[in-house]
Amino acid sequence: MNKFTYQRKIYFADTDAAGVVYFANLLSICHESYEEYLTKLKINLPDFFRNNIIAIPIIHAEIDFFKPLFCGDLIMIDLSTKLINDKIFEISYKINQDNVLIASALTRHICINPQTRKTQEIPLIIKKNL
Amino acid sequence: MNKFTYQRKIYFADTDAAGVVYFANLLSICHESYEEYLTKLKINLPDFFRNNIIAIPIIHAEIDFFKPLFCGDLIMIDLSTKLINDKIFEISYKINQDNVLIASALTRHICINPQTRKTQEIPLIIKKNL
Amino acid sequence: MNKFTYQRKIYFADTDAAGVVYFANLLSICHESYEEYLTKLKINLPDFFRNNIIAIPIIHAEIDFFKPLFCGDLIMIDLSTKLINDKIFEISYKINQDNVLIASALTRHICINPQTRKTQEIPLIIKKNL
Amino acid sequence: MNKFTYQRKIYFADTDAAGVVYFANLLSICHESYEEYLTKLKINLPDFFRNNIIAIPIIHAEIDFFKPLFCGDLIMIDLSTKLINDKIFEISYKINQDNVLIASALTRHICINPQTRKTQEIPLIIKKNL
Repeated sequence: MNKFTYQRKIYFADTDAAGVVYFANLLSICHESYEEYLTKLKINLPDFFRNNIIAIPIIHAEIDFFKPLFCGDLIMIDLSTKLINDKIFEISYKINQDNVLIASALTRHICINPQTRKTQEIPLIIKKNL
Repeated sequence: MNKFTYQRKIYFADTDAAGVVYFANLLSICHESYEEYLTKLKINLPDFFRNNIIAIPIIHAEIDFFKPLFCGDLIMIDLSTKLINDKIFEISYKINQDNVLIASALTRHICINPQTRKTQEIPLIIKKNL
Repeated sequence: MNKFTYQRKIYFADTDAAGVVYFANLLSICHESYEEYLTKLKINLPDFFRNNIIAIPIIHAEIDFFKPLFCGDLIMIDLSTKLINDKIFEISYKINQDNVLIASALTRHICINPQTRKTQEIPLIIKKNL
Repeated sequence: MNKFTYQRKIYFADTDAAGVVYFANLLSICHESYEEYLTKLKINLPDFFRNNIIAIPIIHAEIDFFKPLFCGDLIMIDLSTKLINDKIFEISYKINQDNVLIASALTRHICINPQTRKTQEIPLIIKKNL
């Protein structure tokens, strides 16, 4: 298991007319932390996300909300990775503000060939960092 | 339990550089079907979403993806509602394209007072339609 | 010049914490009307937007806001097209609610080869419909 | 006139199926730089954006694109402010990557009473920093 922390401010575009972060946008913000983690592993993001041979789409995502987030709030996302099998890994996210847990989320990723959509093994560079 | 069907085209803004719908955007599209269901119940959306006395935020959301969706694809979302208790209800969504299941999602909603953030009973107009 | 009308409800995800539509989201909604216009012309959207030989990116966009839009509002977008030269066309959008002008927008598009990013002539199927 | 610089990575959610940043999303990213500028001025963002007495909505936005942006790209936004009159100011944005101009944008803001939607003078704390 690997761990990584990402700090993010809540912007106006993240909010909705109820005055708080729109639920689906917090999953996007979690995905940003995953992208920063990949960057830390020296993985080239455009190669990773637009590859014709290997794609690792999300097959499951979930999120639980404990407290609301407002525009201007500063959050810390603690990301941790878990290898499920040769083809699947999970990322879990703890979203904190001032050391209070605001939300927790999880994304499950499967390695496929993007042309055939058939599953295949996760590349070693990713696997060894999970 | 109540049922409702919503038809939606996938737009360019829904997609990402992998060429398919960005995972979190499909949850937003599910939320649109919930808003259309509320409209069908003659619930005034701005009153519902910007109310100072009653708010019904999402406390949990999850989604499973079985097939990718591309720009221009036409989807049908079958929404069904379920009352969990006096304060909580769930909406489940089956996302289909040409009668093939593409994804399924669920949102759990809790009724609160938006000022105090304390839980309270779901209003009758909503409850009787769940 | 060609004309087209698109009807759209304002959804919760379109709004921000000020309670109205977030400014950049109304440009996305205008782009939806452009996609519906392309669909009416029998243009295949994934072919159009993910083509390796011809891409028609936006080089300029602008929008003026006259009145706010709230969640649940129903708008009509009147789109009209204008050929500027062999490589460039413009789409203008009038966003109305109950026959009152809420906003107006414009997007300018240039035809390029997406590999070289060099300009080229707009394909006939598009050109003859501008 | 005041100046401010904001650094931002392009994330996967910012992109579309053409593989580059979706046009309207770059305006949202410019708005982030405006929010960071307000934060630097010690303006409380939730107070600023959800105020019942003073609102400063965008009445005009425009953007010109010179080069495409891809997932993982690092951009610098140079923001500068300009007071137009007692009620209106403009923010202009130069979006650079490795000192090459990628896009330029402008937003025009008007000070209103959000209840009556009537114009009023820009608050001093903002005005003296334009």
